Amino acid sequence: MRTQVAIIGSGPSGLLLGQLLTNAGIENVILDRVSKDYILGRVRAGVLEEGMVSMMERAGAADRMHRDGLEHDGFSLAFDGRDHRIDLFGLTGKRVLVYGQTEVTRDLMDQREASGATTIYSAENVAPHDFDGTNPYVTFEREGVSHRIDCDFIAGCDGYHGISRKSVPEHSLTTFERVYPFGWLGILADVPPVSHELIYANHSRGFALCSMRSASRSRYYIQCGLDEKIEDWSDERFYDELRRRLPAEHAESMVVGPSFEKSIAPLRSFVAEPMRFGRLFLVGDAAHIVPPTGAKGLNLATSDVFYLFEGLQEYFSEKSAAAIDAYSMRALKRVWGAVRFSWSMTTMMHRFPEAGEFDRKIQEAELNYLVSSKPAATALAENYVGMPY
Amino acid sequence: MRTQVAIIGSGPSGLLLGQLLTNAGIENVILDRVSKDYILGRVRAGVLEEGMVSMMERAGAADRMHRDGLEHDGFSLAFDGRDHRIDLFGLTGKRVLVYGQTEVTRDLMDQREASGATTIYSAENVAPHDFDGTNPYVTFEREGVSHRIDCDFIAGCDGYHGISRKSVPEHSLTTFERVYPFGWLGILADVPPVSHELIYANHSRGFALCSMRSASRSRYYIQCGLDEKIEDWSDERFYDELRRRLPAEHAESMVVGPSFEKSIAPLRSFVAEPMRFGRLFLVGDAAHIVPPTGAKGLNLATSDVFYLFEGLQEYFSEKSAAAIDAYSMRALKRVWGAVRFSWSMTTMMHRFPEAGEFDRKIQEAELNYLVSSKPAATALAENYVGMPY
Repeated sequence: MRTQVAIIGSGPSGLLLGQLLTNAGIENVILDRVSKDYILGRVRAGVLEEGMVSMMERAGAADRMHRDGLEHDGFSLAFDGRDHRIDLFGLTGKRVLVYGQTEVTRDLMDQREASGATTIYSAENVAPHDFDGTNPYVTFEREGVSHRIDCDFIAGCDGYHGISRKSVPEHSLTTFERVYPFGWLGILADVPPVSHELIYANHSRGFALCSMRSASRSRYYIQCGLDEKIEDWSDERFYDELRRRLPAEHAESMVVGPSFEKSIAPLRSFVAEPMRFGRLFLVGDAAHIVPPTGAKGLNLATSDVFYLFEGLQEYFSEKSAAAIDAYSMRALKRVWGAVRFSWSMTTMMHRFPEAGEFDRKIQEAELNYLVSSKPAATALAENYVGMPY
Repeated sequence: MRTQVAIIGSGPSGLLLGQLLTNAGIENVILDRVSKDYILGRVRAGVLEEGMVSMMERAGAADRMHRDGLEHDGFSLAFDGRDHRIDLFGLTGKRVLVYGQTEVTRDLMDQREASGATTIYSAENVAPHDFDGTNPYVTFEREGVSHRIDCDFIAGCDGYHGISRKSVPEHSLTTFERVYPFGWLGILADVPPVSHELIYANHSRGFALCSMRSASRSRYYIQCGLDEKIEDWSDERFYDELRRRLPAEHAESMVVGPSFEKSIAPLRSFVAEPMRFGRLFLVGDAAHIVPPTGAKGLNLATSDVFYLFEGLQEYFSEKSAAAIDAYSMRALKRVWGAVRFSWSMTTMMHRFPEAGEFDRKIQEAELNYLVSSKPAATALAENYVGMPY
C-alpha cells in the first residue's frame, strides 16, 4: 500500500490534518491502534479559539459545531468571594466557542467517512520507519496480519503516549517538563450549568472550574491532591467542596444531580523539541502537553496542523520544502507562547502545597491587578481567545 | 517640646512628608539618628515616576530636579543578543525622570532649611511612645541629654532597620518576605552611559543593568552570588562580565573607567501589615522593601507619603479621621501592586540557581511575549511609569 501522508492517530489533530489534505487532493491514510468507539468514548474539554473554528470550516466539518456550539464573550475570574468578568469580546473583538472535543472528533470522522478517505482502526504495533531517509514507511498488524504503508511523510498525531515521539532517537530530542503538585477531579452531569459563562475560581481551599458542554450538561472540576481516590468522592462530597470554592451566589443557585463521569487528571507541562525529524512530524500532544487551565491543548494541536498542512501543501503543489523546513520553528514559537500562558494561568489560579504566605499575597495581587488593569486583562484575554497563527 | 507630627527619619520620605506638612501649616519635627552628611553619602537609585515628580513640585523642591533630571521615554529589555525597546511614552503617555535619590534628598533638605522647620540630626536612642493612646511622644538623646517631643502623630520614615516598626508589638504585625538567592554588584563611574536609556539585560550568565546618574556618570550592575566578595571584583573583571551579558553593540561601544563606588546589595521583598498602629504610621521602607528591579522603592515610599499627608491634612483642617483611618488600606493596595511588579520583573530577568530548563524556557517565552504583544508591553510599561495613586 502506498499513500502520500501516513497519519498516526485518529484524534482531532490527525483527523483535521487528514481532512485538509484530502480536500487539497493529497492522499492520506489514518491509522489508530484503538477503535472508533473507543476514541469517541474519551471525555475531553472543548473551548475552541476562532482559529480552530476556521480550521473546522476549512475542513468542511463546521455545520454541527456552528449549530450546537455555545459562543462565549467572556468568563469569570472568581476570587475574594465574587466574580470579576473578563470581557473577551470587548477586550479583543474575539469570542470562544464551547463545543466538546469529542463532538469535534465525531464531526471530523463523519466528514472523513463521507469523503471516502481511508482510516484503519485497531491497527496493532503501528511503527514509523526510515523517516530519516526519503522513503519512509509505516508498519502495523491487524488480525494477525502484517501490513506496510509506503509514504512521502509521516504525521505523528498519536498523543503523549504514542509511538511517534518514542520512535525518535533519544539523543535527537530535548524535552522540557513541569509536573504540578495537584490534579483536577472532574465530573460530568446532566444539570444546567451554574453560570452561562465559565467560572475559574481561586479559593483558599483550592482551584475550581465551572464549565459546560451544553445548556443542560455541566462539567465541573476541583483541584485535588495527587493522592486522592475517586471512590472517596461521592457526588455529594464533590458538590459540597465545589460550592465552598465559589462565590455565594453560585453556591446557592447551583443545581446538582448525579454525575455520569468522574475522574482525576494530573497536570503537566511538557515540550519536546524539535517537532520534525526528517520526514516525521510530531503534531499536538505527541510533542507537547499543557495543563488544562485555559483550555489550550486542542487549540495548540490545531495550530500545529495549520503549519504542517501549509508545509505539505506547498511541498506537493510547488515542490518546495521551505514551509516544511520551517514547520518546527513556526509551531514551537506558538507552542511556547501557549505553554507560558497555561503555566501562568495554572500558577495564578491554584494553591501550591509548597507556597508560603508571600506567594499567596502575590497571587492575590496578580488577580487584583488583572481585573483592574485594562492592558493586563487584555493580555490575558488575547491569550485566552488565542494568539494568531 | 511639642509639635503636631513627629517624623522619625530624614530620608526622602520623611523630608517630603515634612515639607508637605510645613507648606500646609502643620508643625513637624524630623529626627534622625545619623548626620546630614551621612545621609547625603548614601548611594541610592533614582528613577522617578511622574507621581513622584508631582510630589516634589508640591513640596516646592522641583527646580534642580527639572533642570538636571533626565527624561526617559523608554528602556531596553535586552535578551537573545539584542535590544527590545519598551516605548514607555508611546504605550502610556508617561515618562520617567532619572534623578538620583541622593539629589532628591539634598533638594528636600535645602528646602526644609529654607522653610525654617526643625530637623534634629544625630539623635540617639530615638523611640516612639504611647502611640496606642491619644498623647504619643518621642524620646531621644543628644550629647548625653534626654529629650522628649510630645505630638499628635508619629510618622515612622526610618527604613527597614529603623525603630518605628520594631516598636510595634510583634503580635500586631503580619510580615511577608521573599529573599532572592542572588545579589547585585554595582559600580558608579564617571564615564558616559553606554546607552541614553536604561538597559535591563537577561543573559545566561545572569542579569545586568546599565543605568546612569547623568550624561557623564554611569551606574552599572550585574547579578552576583550572595557569597561574592567585592575585593574579588576589580573594575576590569566587572566590566568584562558586564559586557558579556550585553548585546554586542553595547559591549563594543562601552566606555570604561575607574569606579568610585562598588558594593553588593542583597535582593528582598518584604511587607509588614498593617501600616498604622494607633497614632504611629509606617511609611516607605519601614513597612516594605522591594528588590531594585524596576526601581519602585522610592516611588512607593512617595505614594505612602501622599496618602498619609492627605490623611493628616484632613485631620488637622477638618477634624476628620476618615483619611487617616484609610491610610493603611490605601497604601497597602498600591504597595502590593508594586511588590508584585518588582517580584515579577526580578523573576523574569534573573537567573535563579534552582531554575531548571523548563523555567528558563518559560522566562524566554515571557520575554518574547512581552516584546511582541502590545497589551503585555503596555502592562509592563504602566507599572514601570507608576500606577496612579
